Amino acid sequence: MVGATGYTGVELLRLLVMHPEVEVSCVTSRSNDGQRVDEMFPSLRGFLDLTFSVPDEQTLSGADLVFFATPNGVAMESVPALLKAGTRVIDLAADFRIRDVGVWSQWYGMQHACPALIDEAVYGLPELNRDAIRKARLVANPGCYPTAVTLGLLPLLERGLVELDSLIADAKSGASGAGRKASVGQLLCEVSDSFKAYGVPGHRHLPEISQNLRQISGVDKLDLVFVPHLLPMIRGIHATLYSTLTPEFQAMELADIQAIYERRYAQESFVDILPAGSHPETRSVRGANLCRMAVHRPQNGRRVVVLSVIDNLVKGAAGQAVQNMNLMLGFQEETGLRHPGLLP
Amino acid sequence: MVGATGYTGVELLRLLVMHPEVEVSCVTSRSNDGQRVDEMFPSLRGFLDLTFSVPDEQTLSGADLVFFATPNGVAMESVPALLKAGTRVIDLAADFRIRDVGVWSQWYGMQHACPALIDEAVYGLPELNRDAIRKARLVANPGCYPTAVTLGLLPLLERGLVELDSLIADAKSGASGAGRKASVGQLLCEVSDSFKAYGVPGHRHLPEISQNLRQISGVDKLDLVFVPHLLPMIRGIHATLYSTLTPEFQAMELADIQAIYERRYAQESFVDILPAGSHPETRSVRGANLCRMAVHRPQNGRRVVVLSVIDNLVKGAAGQAVQNMNLMLGFQEETGLRHPGLLP
Amino acid sequence: MVGATGYTGVELLRLLVMHPEVEVSCVTSRSNDGQRVDEMFPSLRGFLDLTFSVPDEQTLSGADLVFFATPNGVAMESVPALLKAGTRVIDLAADFRIRDVGVWSQWYGMQHACPALIDEAVYGLPELNRDAIRKARLVANPGCYPTAVTLGLLPLLERGLVELDSLIADAKSGASGAGRKASVGQLLCEVSDSFKAYGVPGHRHLPEISQNLRQISGVDKLDLVFVPHLLPMIRGIHATLYSTLTPEFQAMELADIQAIYERRYAQESFVDILPAGSHPETRSVRGANLCRMAVHRPQNGRRVVVLSVIDNLVKGAAGQAVQNMNLMLGFQEETGLRHPGLLP
Amino acid sequence: MVGATGYTGVELLRLLVMHPEVEVSCVTSRSNDGQRVDEMFPSLRGFLDLTFSVPDEQTLSGADLVFFATPNGVAMESVPALLKAGTRVIDLAADFRIRDVGVWSQWYGMQHACPALIDEAVYGLPELNRDAIRKARLVANPGCYPTAVTLGLLPLLERGLVELDSLIADAKSGASGAGRKASVGQLLCEVSDSFKAYGVPGHRHLPEISQNLRQISGVDKLDLVFVPHLLPMIRGIHATLYSTLTPEFQAMELADIQAIYERRYAQESFVDILPAGSHPETRSVRGANLCRMAVHRPQNGRRVVVLSVIDNLVKGAAGQAVQNMNLMLGFQEETGLRHPGLLP
Repeated sequence: MVGATGYTGVELLRLLVMHPEVEVSCVTSRSNDGQRVDEMFPSLRGFLDLTFSVPDEQTLSGADLVFFATPNGVAMESVPALLKAGTRVIDLAADFRIRDVGVWSQWYGMQHACPALIDEAVYGLPELNRDAIRKARLVANPGCYPTAVTLGLLPLLERGLVELDSLIADAKSGASGAGRKASVGQLLCEVSDSFKAYGVPGHRHLPEISQNLRQISGVDKLDLVFVPHLLPMIRGIHATLYSTLTPEFQAMELADIQAIYERRYAQESFVDILPAGSHPETRSVRGANLCRMAVHRPQNGRRVVVLSVIDNLVKGAAGQAVQNMNLMLGFQEETGLRHPGLLP
Repeated sequence: MVGATGYTGVELLRLLVMHPEVEVSCVTSRSNDGQRVDEMFPSLRGFLDLTFSVPDEQTLSGADLVFFATPNGVAMESVPALLKAGTRVIDLAADFRIRDVGVWSQWYGMQHACPALIDEAVYGLPELNRDAIRKARLVANPGCYPTAVTLGLLPLLERGLVELDSLIADAKSGASGAGRKASVGQLLCEVSDSFKAYGVPGHRHLPEISQNLRQISGVDKLDLVFVPHLLPMIRGIHATLYSTLTPEFQAMELADIQAIYERRYAQESFVDILPAGSHPETRSVRGANLCRMAVHRPQNGRRVVVLSVIDNLVKGAAGQAVQNMNLMLGFQEETGLRHPGLLP
Repeated sequence: MVGATGYTGVELLRLLVMHPEVEVSCVTSRSNDGQRVDEMFPSLRGFLDLTFSVPDEQTLSGADLVFFATPNGVAMESVPALLKAGTRVIDLAADFRIRDVGVWSQWYGMQHACPALIDEAVYGLPELNRDAIRKARLVANPGCYPTAVTLGLLPLLERGLVELDSLIADAKSGASGAGRKASVGQLLCEVSDSFKAYGVPGHRHLPEISQNLRQISGVDKLDLVFVPHLLPMIRGIHATLYSTLTPEFQAMELADIQAIYERRYAQESFVDILPAGSHPETRSVRGANLCRMAVHRPQNGRRVVVLSVIDNLVKGAAGQAVQNMNLMLGFQEETGLRHPGLLP
Repeated sequence: MVGATGYTGVELLRLLVMHPEVEVSCVTSRSNDGQRVDEMFPSLRGFLDLTFSVPDEQTLSGADLVFFATPNGVAMESVPALLKAGTRVIDLAADFRIRDVGVWSQWYGMQHACPALIDEAVYGLPELNRDAIRKARLVANPGCYPTAVTLGLLPLLERGLVELDSLIADAKSGASGAGRKASVGQLLCEVSDSFKAYGVPGHRHLPEISQNLRQISGVDKLDLVFVPHLLPMIRGIHATLYSTLTPEFQAMELADIQAIYERRYAQESFVDILPAGSHPETRSVRGANLCRMAVHRPQNGRRVVVLSVIDNLVKGAAGQAVQNMNLMLGFQEETGLRHPGLLP
């Protein structure tokens, strides 16, 4: 596991130390080389007897699978060699999420180190790409906002129920989405007891979400407005998703839309559709690998509102990565991921 | 002042004890008769030497003006007598906000006690109805969500820039909006560290907002989706407002829209337009009688996004009530209301 | 399981549904009879297919063991019949915690329904009474504050290192300690962003803690000051424990005291002694059945300061109850309780 | 005003822009030279029309009084020249708080730049040193913890009621006490929803508090244990102060101690003694220049417990600085400081 000093990293460790089929052989961090992992994260005392080490290709390639919980742009430097050595890789950052390398470079502000591998990489949303993930050598683990938004809109778009120029994703995230790095903007005194939008002119998750929605809809272009907001809390994303039914489907009842959602996700262990009229709370999935959602049609009008919640560190990051690992290594998909959220 | 045991009440007292032109003569509460006000709210120790008393028409009608910071349905029982006695009234609850008494009864679940006075009541949004407020005997102080949403959309609708069937108000409120009453749903352990939507099928502020927007647009019907959410914090509303430019205005630049907002509110002391591209934070208006907003046009598309923040207890309730009182009693509109927010 | 609509109840269910040796056969609640448990607590969807039912002795006595997660005074009404029927009982409330029934009545304000059983009941702190718990028919699960304070002071008192009239427990608890009942004092708007002491003149956990400390010290009387405080957060207790070394032990080094703590708890799975000089955070045990502590001796003076943290709902309530159940039913003590805290 | 990019700085500006006798002529910050102050702190929009400038002795010495809201060690570099130029100075940092320069260097890790001025500097606690402050050229504004602790213990020590080797200050502070600088330890995700002690082996405020208490007691040595804790909130300090009555005063009633406190602070505008048995909440002084306290004597024993709360940014920093300025410049002591706290 490469890079474990962030929130995604410690969450991945929390899940992996309890996973019955996995042994964590090595946890790397350049800046914390030599420090015990459980000294940085005392919650892991008694569960992980390792020190951080400097990443080293030989050691890493000895593993069946390597997770990169690193900043954007790190994984792409090491992935070619690892794949060559037969090691499979899950990148929790954004290096392999965007198909169009030009778009990627524009949003991430760097040249891609191995553009040839982008095509091979599988976007790790099991509900969309399960079979491809099983066989993948390289999985691009989805972003947190894209997971909540894509799963929330998927049934509407697959069935072509809504206007593709009417989509709005008003999304709210806890502060752990910004990671564990020193920054004035993420201090408790800046974030707590306040609320704001950010990135309204443009956010890196916009092209990723658009790509997903276009793939699902089978179109080249759609018009999505994505507004992220910062919640005064640690974990959780709530996406409030707006769209307008196309004229031909305006006669549809809310119950019909509800049924479409329930059928679409009936076989999915990690998507839970609440009864119509419900309001999912982020805390109901705190610590759990789950996307929970509810469908609404206010005042019986033309607009559909979907409420979709995840724990950004679990189904939005580390939990989904473990889910992908389970698929890649042939374990039961639920292994190590079945436990209720921590409520309250 | 009638009913001061809630959050709106204590906030009104905080403002009134510092107001140079006002003397609070009487604070009523049936259930706390005889208790010192500053025993319930120690923040007022040294500022208010009164005990709660049972409301009594004669005492109340001795005042120049009476505030009702009571639950819905209380003010309407006393208002006719007070007006008859020559006392002016500001109702911070919803009894006189909705013109159509049938709609009111449907949403508030009761018969109106004095429907004849609804027409006379002035909706107390000074930015919309300043002159009428000055002369009013009875002012219906606006709801918190309606204040943030109406001020945010007003310039677009006045100028007819956007499609009236495209409006979405995705609004988020701190928990003080729910008031100070014993309730499991508002416990810290239920609200803190979590986030959810509520009232998606229908919320009492929807007809109030619709009425305002129709008045501004001069139309009989428009299609608004209003989704309120509960924030894990005490004070503050953030409304994220979506609309679609009409075809004739799609050539407009963001700078033009920005200019329209700045001009519209240039003379308003309690509305602040941030530079284009900004993201207002609720904390920047904590404790202040201010609506602060910013205008966006993501990806230069057809959609306009307005971000509008208020402190729900101040510009969304008690502060706006004082602003209305200032207008009614001929004081400077800013009196007692000019101070910066408490940040951090 | 009797009474599961509170925070202790839902936490117990969270642990029991994952426990490999347990089947939850029945969850009672008078006021929610007929409601699905996972409708009240959506975090349990997919894990528990039960509805609340009215408690009924016959059904309950069919179980091997019954948990009471009820308000004080409820368990004592049913326990005699259950014991007679051969069912073992763990009471998470306070009915059987205080040996002296007069003291109990004074603090809890009621007559005891079965004083004869108080002597038989075993105080369920495994680190103190493990063997008796194994054989007990009736276990009084300790209070949250008493758990953190008792475990924190135990090694000092067992060894007689400190003056018995010097003890101070300055304890701070998250709001979930107050339970899930409608109350103005526990609203987010009252508790959040604030801090206060409460119950300084006297708190029900004082006699319970005193009883534990007297038992450990083997004395009839000691002088403890206990000051509880309310933290603006959900879970977690932090006890800061002060005591003064007796003259004969003032030559002792901090390292010696550290060694005494480490040895005392070396075999305990659910007590973790941090290295000397550490500061345990409550979040490091969030969701975990663990008491984590650190020992200090400021300025090398006569005073010892112990910092002791638990999750009040886990080691302070439901987790400790499961630990006791494991002992009573002959399971491995760690079963169902070994997982890291949720950090961040 | 030198250094205004921190929380103390913005709070000082919040108070000064409303102060009727003051004009803020200059706000300096090296790193933000040229930026508008209200761009960094939007809460000040409309109240302050200044940009940050590089500190420059000539401009500063043109002011009647200069505030330093800078990190420790900055003020001492400029103070000698300013005093020479006839400008009076209030340092909100620690440069002139500790009489013994050796002790100062040890705790602050640097050489003092002008040790000769330490003796002249007046410790700016008006309740202790009012007359000296009036005449001072240089005031050392007290630390936040020292303000809450010193005011809380002062009446007991002045009257010699308690053992000087029994003192314990268990203090809890909101995160704004740590300032507005990028740091992992102060991220919302690290501080929120958790609680911990810190600096138990030694904290810089310990020698400052000890110095105050020794001065009050008129002794050379006393034994204080000071344990600071970090609260998951923004503003507020709560000090829980323990001490033991000396044998000669053990017959004293709580009511007598209460009377001593009330008399000692009867003339103080910014100290408020609650009725005996009360529990002050930090929120009751949020934004207010006030130390509010309550006295207890648990179980009528030998121990006295004082609960003392302040807003660390107001009475613990910026408000106290304004209070000192009022004294120095001959204004009414209350000017610009009389307003209730923001509750809720």
